[in-house]
Amino acid sequence: MAITTGIVGAAGFAGIELTRLALRHPDLDLRVVTSNELAGTPVAAEYPGFTGATDLAFATHDDPALDACDLVFLAVPHTAALKMAPQLVARGVTVVDLSADFRLKDPAVYERWYATPHTATDLLQRAAFGLPELFPDDLARVAAAHAAGEGVLVACAGCYPTATSLAAAPAVRAGLVRPDAVVVVDAISGVTGAGKKASARTHFCFADENLEAYGVATHRHTPEIEQILGLEGRLVFTPHLAPLNRGLLSTVNLPLAPDAPADAGEIVELYRNFYADDPFVHVLDAGAMPKTSSVAGTNYAHVGLAVNQAARMLVAVGAIDNLGKGAASQAVQCANAVLGLPQTRGLEPISVPV
Amino acid sequence: MAITTGIVGAAGFAGIELTRLALRHPDLDLRVVTSNELAGTPVAAEYPGFTGATDLAFATHDDPALDACDLVFLAVPHTAALKMAPQLVARGVTVVDLSADFRLKDPAVYERWYATPHTATDLLQRAAFGLPELFPDDLARVAAAHAAGEGVLVACAGCYPTATSLAAAPAVRAGLVRPDAVVVVDAISGVTGAGKKASARTHFCFADENLEAYGVATHRHTPEIEQILGLEGRLVFTPHLAPLNRGLLSTVNLPLAPDAPADAGEIVELYRNFYADDPFVHVLDAGAMPKTSSVAGTNYAHVGLAVNQAARMLVAVGAIDNLGKGAASQAVQCANAVLGLPQTRGLEPISVPV
Amino acid sequence: MAITTGIVGAAGFAGIELTRLALRHPDLDLRVVTSNELAGTPVAAEYPGFTGATDLAFATHDDPALDACDLVFLAVPHTAALKMAPQLVARGVTVVDLSADFRLKDPAVYERWYATPHTATDLLQRAAFGLPELFPDDLARVAAAHAAGEGVLVACAGCYPTATSLAAAPAVRAGLVRPDAVVVVDAISGVTGAGKKASARTHFCFADENLEAYGVATHRHTPEIEQILGLEGRLVFTPHLAPLNRGLLSTVNLPLAPDAPADAGEIVELYRNFYADDPFVHVLDAGAMPKTSSVAGTNYAHVGLAVNQAARMLVAVGAIDNLGKGAASQAVQCANAVLGLPQTRGLEPISVPV
Amino acid sequence: MAITTGIVGAAGFAGIELTRLALRHPDLDLRVVTSNELAGTPVAAEYPGFTGATDLAFATHDDPALDACDLVFLAVPHTAALKMAPQLVARGVTVVDLSADFRLKDPAVYERWYATPHTATDLLQRAAFGLPELFPDDLARVAAAHAAGEGVLVACAGCYPTATSLAAAPAVRAGLVRPDAVVVVDAISGVTGAGKKASARTHFCFADENLEAYGVATHRHTPEIEQILGLEGRLVFTPHLAPLNRGLLSTVNLPLAPDAPADAGEIVELYRNFYADDPFVHVLDAGAMPKTSSVAGTNYAHVGLAVNQAARMLVAVGAIDNLGKGAASQAVQCANAVLGLPQTRGLEPISVPV
Repeated sequence: MAITTGIVGAAGFAGIELTRLALRHPDLDLRVVTSNELAGTPVAAEYPGFTGATDLAFATHDDPALDACDLVFLAVPHTAALKMAPQLVARGVTVVDLSADFRLKDPAVYERWYATPHTATDLLQRAAFGLPELFPDDLARVAAAHAAGEGVLVACAGCYPTATSLAAAPAVRAGLVRPDAVVVVDAISGVTGAGKKASARTHFCFADENLEAYGVATHRHTPEIEQILGLEGRLVFTPHLAPLNRGLLSTVNLPLAPDAPADAGEIVELYRNFYADDPFVHVLDAGAMPKTSSVAGTNYAHVGLAVNQAARMLVAVGAIDNLGKGAASQAVQCANAVLGLPQTRGLEPISVPV
Repeated sequence: MAITTGIVGAAGFAGIELTRLALRHPDLDLRVVTSNELAGTPVAAEYPGFTGATDLAFATHDDPALDACDLVFLAVPHTAALKMAPQLVARGVTVVDLSADFRLKDPAVYERWYATPHTATDLLQRAAFGLPELFPDDLARVAAAHAAGEGVLVACAGCYPTATSLAAAPAVRAGLVRPDAVVVVDAISGVTGAGKKASARTHFCFADENLEAYGVATHRHTPEIEQILGLEGRLVFTPHLAPLNRGLLSTVNLPLAPDAPADAGEIVELYRNFYADDPFVHVLDAGAMPKTSSVAGTNYAHVGLAVNQAARMLVAVGAIDNLGKGAASQAVQCANAVLGLPQTRGLEPISVPV
Repeated sequence: MAITTGIVGAAGFAGIELTRLALRHPDLDLRVVTSNELAGTPVAAEYPGFTGATDLAFATHDDPALDACDLVFLAVPHTAALKMAPQLVARGVTVVDLSADFRLKDPAVYERWYATPHTATDLLQRAAFGLPELFPDDLARVAAAHAAGEGVLVACAGCYPTATSLAAAPAVRAGLVRPDAVVVVDAISGVTGAGKKASARTHFCFADENLEAYGVATHRHTPEIEQILGLEGRLVFTPHLAPLNRGLLSTVNLPLAPDAPADAGEIVELYRNFYADDPFVHVLDAGAMPKTSSVAGTNYAHVGLAVNQAARMLVAVGAIDNLGKGAASQAVQCANAVLGLPQTRGLEPISVPV
Repeated sequence: MAITTGIVGAAGFAGIELTRLALRHPDLDLRVVTSNELAGTPVAAEYPGFTGATDLAFATHDDPALDACDLVFLAVPHTAALKMAPQLVARGVTVVDLSADFRLKDPAVYERWYATPHTATDLLQRAAFGLPELFPDDLARVAAAHAAGEGVLVACAGCYPTATSLAAAPAVRAGLVRPDAVVVVDAISGVTGAGKKASARTHFCFADENLEAYGVATHRHTPEIEQILGLEGRLVFTPHLAPLNRGLLSTVNLPLAPDAPADAGEIVELYRNFYADDPFVHVLDAGAMPKTSSVAGTNYAHVGLAVNQAARMLVAVGAIDNLGKGAASQAVQCANAVLGLPQTRGLEPISVPV
């Protein structure tokens, strides 16, 4: 297969990782990458690691070549996808959106958190939520529409929601978690999560040798996690920044229901059954804890589980690469699913070991 | 004043930071530093940053010069202090212990977590707990004994307990926290917290570009935090490791009692009143969050506070230098208190800004 | 093709990177990986990034399965290869050696620098030097012997020699460099270059936030660089350590001969012609300087060139991944050459962009 | 003594480190700190490590309080000092300038490298060069003028020139270096050396896990090093950037004159005699090499020496903190000298050990 492909917003961190993955993908034919800021600049001039691998230069977001693509990834800030996605879908394009614009199913929730009305609610209802391990039917529905010749949209899950939900969902869905309980999620991200824009926060000398919490009680991934796990009003989510490039670790504290097992080994089995058909999620032995370095550069998620017996708390820890399973490679996995390809196609099997 | 001083276990990370602080302290006269492993090696040969500042070489732990000291810091692994402290105290020495041996007031709890019986329970009962902002009376009691000519012992709080308790105690003591609720603490430490021993965990290439949780539901600081805050059986504590040298951030999730205020500004005021006389704790404006880099190399703790209204959760974040307020400088602060010196004596007023 | 493959010393940093590359290589069938220290341990238990990608466990170095391999990589300390390589070659195996044992053509030089006599001088003379861009004929000779059914040996170049020689050789071979002049090479390596062994040098807390020179005037890569470039007695080589995992930058100061051009643009052209057929070397525009991050995880070398007119000095800077072009991927490139495969087979086309 | 003090450009990295040092200095009374960009912002709001230590807020550069100061440090970009210094000196202020504006004694050289004419050549001739170990008489001359009631100016040496010259000067001045030879200096700096401005170069994600050379053959510290060491036209200086905050290592390759000793031990003795009265320079034993972490946060320089016998090259390596001896603490050392204080006054005796 040679699927003509475009990437809008290709110069940002998620976009350039997508560009790398698309160029390596045996079935994708990357035709156009865009960046309004860097229009005209060769990809390899901005990111020298592409030297010799592509002659593509960044085009503008309105480059007509996008309309001719079978597949377009949107790696643009929120509200930008709100405008672009409907037009592309209307032209029959398969759109995989990495922004937040089509993730929240309730337009009122979107408006509350993003301070702007949702202007494409029709498409919002038809969009699939791109977290393949937890919403396979949604992707299958959209794949069928694609197979029938329709333009379709996948709204890929965010980085914190992905790590958090993969660590929590098997327990939540199996009813292990006390239904009324508050769930505390403390997560840590590498600095690529803060984006390419140079700022005091992303300055090496302020990020290096520093730890901090940010967006406490206000981070926009909160409603997305609540939606995925059914935790409306019961989620306390605190993201943290640590001095590394890639890596996201989410520590999810799940209060066990009175009748739930409190044996970590038993819960590990339940998780392994849950993910039995999912090549990208590995559940560690009871008590073992994942390292983000084990998944850097890949689409894998590693999940560790332990139980605090006295407090009857399941501590579930998910590790991903925030630009991988948290963004670009998950987008490719979603595209594979819609296009009818094996979900592992074009994705790296092993993380760089050191 | 010229207080003759010794440091046992001076070659480890806490010990060498203590050595640095003792040499800079205007009232301490550092006479002996010990390390069985490096006995005979000049301090400046092992740590070249001391070149020109001291000619001391490491002695062995049983160096008789220790008995002649007014003040001895113990920076040894647990169980070692159990043996050494009673002998020194019996000789009238003021002992400031950085190990875990005299922190837990209940010998049974000590035995459960450290898998060894407590063999100095008498001294355990007389020891002061070294966390000056939260237990000033305990230190005052021991200072009076010292002034009366007795040998005394201060058991300094651990790094995670210090950051966690300073962030939580004002709310807990004021009754803001639901009395039956589980408190979730997720904390992150720099690699100096893992100690000087070279191992896979502390290898640069495994620690760099990595995040991981460790000691989940089993970390030995759990009973200490429970004791300080009165949380027996209601604490879920998960420490994490991140790629930096110094810094410890503790994110404490405190469920608010039904009648507690949920306004962060109000709670900030309460905290500021609580710490009004404490020069080393700074409470940030409501919603602002501390950075560990702001306290690196110092004895300060910075505390940030925010409230998740929907879940009625107070998120209190404490930042310290794990080798500073979490170990060496807190020990000096405790020594100052016992010796009747101003508690800021010899301690750095400002963190290195970048 | 399915070339049965073994890796001896697979648990070290170069060995495990080779393991990753061998598993991803479409023509290699990795049958055995060895580590005496970790014999019996699954690869994925020691390096969790391999979870799901292989069920191999480490065997011992004397595992008989090695003899049945078509291709064996040796990633062992020096002197160990001296014993193993002759036996394997005698059995007809293609051996690609990453150690220093067969790099120095003069056994007396080997003995002087490695303080042990060379005990396989026959094989030494027949071995090819594994730096494909600079010694293609040597590899072609060995490839012919392999095609004729003989066991053969490739001695891969070291990390510093590779970066240094790729930056220097086109100028040296074209006669641009003053024949009697001393060449100063100052190079910087990431910490993976110091190996997997946990030590004070590789401890995160000593390597982080530190720069140092080491092995000044004594580093064992000195005679290898001298041999490659014909600089016997005229090389001053100083390696440095910096706080990153992967990356090696070599700054080579080449005094220009009186009749050599001093125009960087002209010299860039000469370099580009020199490397015209080499997919793994990119010569940057005059004055532009390479970043090691641009080649991390790959087999690429980027070379930057500038001229100091007043001092008539060509400053040539080479950037590689010390575990990539400096070790594991170069070994795969060499194996590809001997086996008659395209030299890029199985090697990553693009570096991770951030 | 209470010397009223001002710092112009106090919000940059050198300026804020100066602010920290001035606040800790027992004889300086810091009255005003300026930053046009941050005017009105409290120092502790921008740099939270100052919380509790000062209530100062940044004023503008033209704040009249500067004229009332005894001592003003200028930490502004070049050309800005050119305008401000003459006015302050004319008012009798002691000015310590960290910019490049008064370092180069020949106005033509300044104009060539900074592309702007020197407009204060009178003051330039009267200025002292602020590198106390190498130009003590110059500082003494200015101290005498100050004692006589005149306004004076010290132009502090830059970071690369300081590390390089301290490593090279004893050999150069003793005639050990071949008079016609080219001297190659390859130096590495931490990212604070690139300044506070957020840019792609200083973005964490581009600086982390990366090494690069920059400013090859064009860096503006070249003429300054040439002037200090008398190397006009014979210096090849290449600076490099590595992923750490503070630290600068300069590796200086000095070709030995035919009659110079080639024994490192002998040269170490010569260096130690040279620096016998200088508390801030430590010369390591022959063959030992300095670490930048040993001097971080301090005014120390550590120098290591080795000889390549075959090439008759003295390799002298200097380690400093680029913001310490390379900027702020050297400025304080110079101020101490001019004011008649001990040169160590207010400066940290020991580097943070880890």
